[in-house]
Amino acid sequence: MSYVAPVKDMLFNIEHLANIEQIAQLPGFEDAGLDTAQAVLEESAKFTEGVLAPLNWEGDKNPSSWKDGVVTATPGFKEAFKQFTDGGWQGLQHPTDFGGQGLPKTIGAACGEMVNSANMSFALCPLLSDGAIEALLTAGSDELKATYLENLVSGKWTGTMNLTEPQAGSDLAMVRSRAEPQTDGTYKVFGTKIFITWGEHDMAENIVHLVLARVTGAPEGVKGISLFVCPKFMVNKDGSLGARNDVHCVSIEHKMGIKASPTAVLQYGDHGGAVGYLVGQENRGLEYMFIMMNAARYGVGVQGIAIAERAYQKAVQFSKDRVQSRPVDGSIAASAPIIHHPDVKRMLMTMRAYTEGCRALASVGASAYDAAHHHPDADTRKQNQAFYEYMVPLIKGYSTEMSLEVTSLGVQVHGGMGFIEETGAAQYYRDAKILTIYEGTTAIQANDLVGRKTARDGGQTAKGIAAQIETTEAELAASGSAHALAVAKRLKAARLAFIDVVDFVAGNTKASPNAVFAGSVPYLMLAGNLMAGWQLARALLVAEKQIAAGNDAPFMQAKITTARFYADHLLSKAGGLRDSIVEGAESVTALALEAF
Amino acid sequence: MSYVAPVKDMLFNIEHLANIEQIAQLPGFEDAGLDTAQAVLEESAKFTEGVLAPLNWEGDKNPSSWKDGVVTATPGFKEAFKQFTDGGWQGLQHPTDFGGQGLPKTIGAACGEMVNSANMSFALCPLLSDGAIEALLTAGSDELKATYLENLVSGKWTGTMNLTEPQAGSDLAMVRSRAEPQTDGTYKVFGTKIFITWGEHDMAENIVHLVLARVTGAPEGVKGISLFVCPKFMVNKDGSLGARNDVHCVSIEHKMGIKASPTAVLQYGDHGGAVGYLVGQENRGLEYMFIMMNAARYGVGVQGIAIAERAYQKAVQFSKDRVQSRPVDGSIAASAPIIHHPDVKRMLMTMRAYTEGCRALASVGASAYDAAHHHPDADTRKQNQAFYEYMVPLIKGYSTEMSLEVTSLGVQVHGGMGFIEETGAAQYYRDAKILTIYEGTTAIQANDLVGRKTARDGGQTAKGIAAQIETTEAELAASGSAHALAVAKRLKAARLAFIDVVDFVAGNTKASPNAVFAGSVPYLMLAGNLMAGWQLARALLVAEKQIAAGNDAPFMQAKITTARFYADHLLSKAGGLRDSIVEGAESVTALALEAF
Repeated sequence: MSYVAPVKDMLFNIEHLANIEQIAQLPGFEDAGLDTAQAVLEESAKFTEGVLAPLNWEGDKNPSSWKDGVVTATPGFKEAFKQFTDGGWQGLQHPTDFGGQGLPKTIGAACGEMVNSANMSFALCPLLSDGAIEALLTAGSDELKATYLENLVSGKWTGTMNLTEPQAGSDLAMVRSRAEPQTDGTYKVFGTKIFITWGEHDMAENIVHLVLARVTGAPEGVKGISLFVCPKFMVNKDGSLGARNDVHCVSIEHKMGIKASPTAVLQYGDHGGAVGYLVGQENRGLEYMFIMMNAARYGVGVQGIAIAERAYQKAVQFSKDRVQSRPVDGSIAASAPIIHHPDVKRMLMTMRAYTEGCRALASVGASAYDAAHHHPDADTRKQNQAFYEYMVPLIKGYSTEMSLEVTSLGVQVHGGMGFIEETGAAQYYRDAKILTIYEGTTAIQANDLVGRKTARDGGQTAKGIAAQIETTEAELAASGSAHALAVAKRLKAARLAFIDVVDFVAGNTKASPNAVFAGSVPYLMLAGNLMAGWQLARALLVAEKQIAAGNDAPFMQAKITTARFYADHLLSKAGGLRDSIVEGAESVTALALEAF
Repeated sequence: MSYVAPVKDMLFNIEHLANIEQIAQLPGFEDAGLDTAQAVLEESAKFTEGVLAPLNWEGDKNPSSWKDGVVTATPGFKEAFKQFTDGGWQGLQHPTDFGGQGLPKTIGAACGEMVNSANMSFALCPLLSDGAIEALLTAGSDELKATYLENLVSGKWTGTMNLTEPQAGSDLAMVRSRAEPQTDGTYKVFGTKIFITWGEHDMAENIVHLVLARVTGAPEGVKGISLFVCPKFMVNKDGSLGARNDVHCVSIEHKMGIKASPTAVLQYGDHGGAVGYLVGQENRGLEYMFIMMNAARYGVGVQGIAIAERAYQKAVQFSKDRVQSRPVDGSIAASAPIIHHPDVKRMLMTMRAYTEGCRALASVGASAYDAAHHHPDADTRKQNQAFYEYMVPLIKGYSTEMSLEVTSLGVQVHGGMGFIEETGAAQYYRDAKILTIYEGTTAIQANDLVGRKTARDGGQTAKGIAAQIETTEAELAASGSAHALAVAKRLKAARLAFIDVVDFVAGNTKASPNAVFAGSVPYLMLAGNLMAGWQLARALLVAEKQIAAGNDAPFMQAKITTARFYADHLLSKAGGLRDSIVEGAESVTALALEAF
């Protein structure tokens, strides 16, 4: 089997770190306890391992292809997508009102990881549909909801996000696509959109494009952008499909990775205008788009974890099979599987610790999201929302950056074989590189972290989280075990480094923006590192208690070792990052432009 | 122009850090002063920029191809290789006795960087020939030298290294290819060799394979390996080519990068045995192979620098062209080229500092090599040899690991465009990944660093270098400028971290090999980081003096800023690495095998 879903680790997080039983007490989640989580995850594991994972390498060898405006997905994808939708997986987290299963994100995120581990190119299609569904749920009229939601939630139709234009990438103020109001209340949309993931394909009957454009006469900049629904096929009153809309795929990109996922250039309005339906109010498009973006950013963070997990599993398997050289400690007097070599263990442990740390963080983030949306108490909702919003740029930025290191180590463990495409490790390395770029580059996440998540409240949310971490340190001290004390030492040092940086950011964003933004990505990396390490420290405490209670000692001992490794080898980077950020800003921006 | 050779930076290193005028006083290098260096580098720049660089992307799109045992290089490569050999570039560093130019490595390495920046796939062919030449010069009989060297040095023929077999990668003890002695003093060679770079191609008239194999009855393990020359075509007494030898290319690999460089599977002896000529003595093959390997390891380190430079140049160009968003400091009231954004500057400065630091280190290493081989004083030769040998695993390991980060940042600077193959940034990212693997993975370099270069002399060489670094710190303190003091602070901290690690390694390799080798790669990264940062600190001191003397202030100021950036942002990682190595060994090897 090329992928085995880490159901046990996921359930450990869901039960002990994300506290699923508390979530199951929230209104609407009454049936979503640990038993449900286990049943859903096991079903998801079966499907992703058996159906999606075997198609992953095929998608790389035989990418989705374009001919005369028609995109054909990699052989096997259409059938797999039908099984995906038949299984109800698209609607997992969406409201039962529109045919979804209404499960908490705490459960849904784990399933999302499995889909992405199994086949990241495939997974992008439902990920984008999720974003479209969120936007319509939040801002769509009743008519739009009635027309589109049920088929999006079932997966009969898929959704896309159309933001980017050749001159407008991170800078959406430069969007030029335009929408002309028509007398019937619809709009005609004109323009070119690029980098549209699954923007055209043959896996679903219809594609629902959510498109940013400017209504004629709208203000310049981001305040003049509106959001439209442009379906590929018009939808008749009875729900049947009508004429082809004037949106066409003129090409797809030749990419380094995620090759099965067609990245479309879409042309709107070359034949009279694409019919568009306004979502919400005019000129509030960016606000609605951020709803999609935030859901998608969390989702991309999960992709980082997912591909890291897959790369880890492949590397472990190879290192148990490949026999080369004797162990340095003389424990085996013949050439041995390379997993016996300390540096191979170091690489595998690095991969494992990063992946488990980020998974734990994402699980806790999902739990906060669920509480923020379902808790009856307004203050609790607000606190959880602030916690979740702080974590989103970390989950996106840190988990994807770590996936670059993990997939690179995955190739490295394979030695020369890793560089041969047929081995498969290289695909993960190539696929992963998109993750630090799309849905906002790491720098864009770091801008969000600095501006909206730290400077805006003077670092209060960040400091509040630091106080929670201090509590964990006290619990580690109370445990008193050698591992707990070692982890507490690193956690404290990282927390203190973090507080220095938060003070630096909160204190200087207005007066010295260049200095603060010079350290924005290092701040994100330090914060993400700390938060993931913190969750593993909490996991260590749980594991110690579970061992004491006689539960599953091998798994729990491994969790402790992994937490200890994370602290010793990854949290230990925090001090250097602090120094770079707080003391090193000047040299980032000092070089004259002409000297580059 | 897609590549502009950094001649100025190279000459700065050659003049001020590698002290070319001292090398020009060594016997044999009388004509190799700064003027010669400048003339050679400028000629090399013209050739690599104009001829080799434009073929780089073509090689990725249109890789070398195999059909019926014949490998055809990417269109244009054969003609370019003819120009390369006509220009005398293959013989740059080789003895004048065999038609070479006999220039010092200090000059040759800079030219090698250019060839690799321009076209890494192409550059591998002469790099492998260099190794074959070195081995024959050192261990070949007069007859072998007379038969092969002149044509290898001219580039009329090319050379290869045949080590790897499917079961024998890092572990050469497992080599199974065998050689049967013949009555005429030749051998018949049988076996399968894989991963043979430029193992078959159409760019040269003949290919001289250097092959590891076991003579019938030889001892097991590495002590029973001999080295043979197996030419593709037999060479007649008069030097003309004779019959085809029984070595055939049965396939080439489908790789993630360096696609124009054919990676061959070579089959020896399927039709009666390939004629082989023993190099040196039986059973000493590994020793001779290490001559090739050590030359090649230094060369691969230079490849890391080379591809980092190319990625940097591309990223700088894009960031000056691409307009997105307003600068955070309000200095421009409209969307601006992205180089105005602090995080883009951080990425470019990181790329630049790594590249310049590793280039300076390689230049100083080359200078030590020249002194070790040409200095009239035996003690001076010995000191330089020890210095060079300590640096080789760092130049190979650190420069190639840094090239992964630099080429990844290169893609990142391009945003979404970086993931599109036509942009070209992705090629560098894919190409670079082989560098940490071939000619010994980073872990193999780290084994060398720990075992032969540190533990064997109880850390004396390492400590001696640390003492030299302390002298540089004193010079920085004496300068007293803010930049010099800031760099001195980081350099001292990194040196102290390094000494802790050297003590740990020297003190524990025998008693606790697992603990030491768990930190071997982090030790290599710390040592490489320190040595590169040290060279930039020396460069800062030179630059301050040059500015005081009124020489080229803009270049010198940029060198100071880059050195400062290196110290603030890269040397600052040293403390975390020290903690990981010295305090974190236990958690690397603690996990039970079945828990992976």
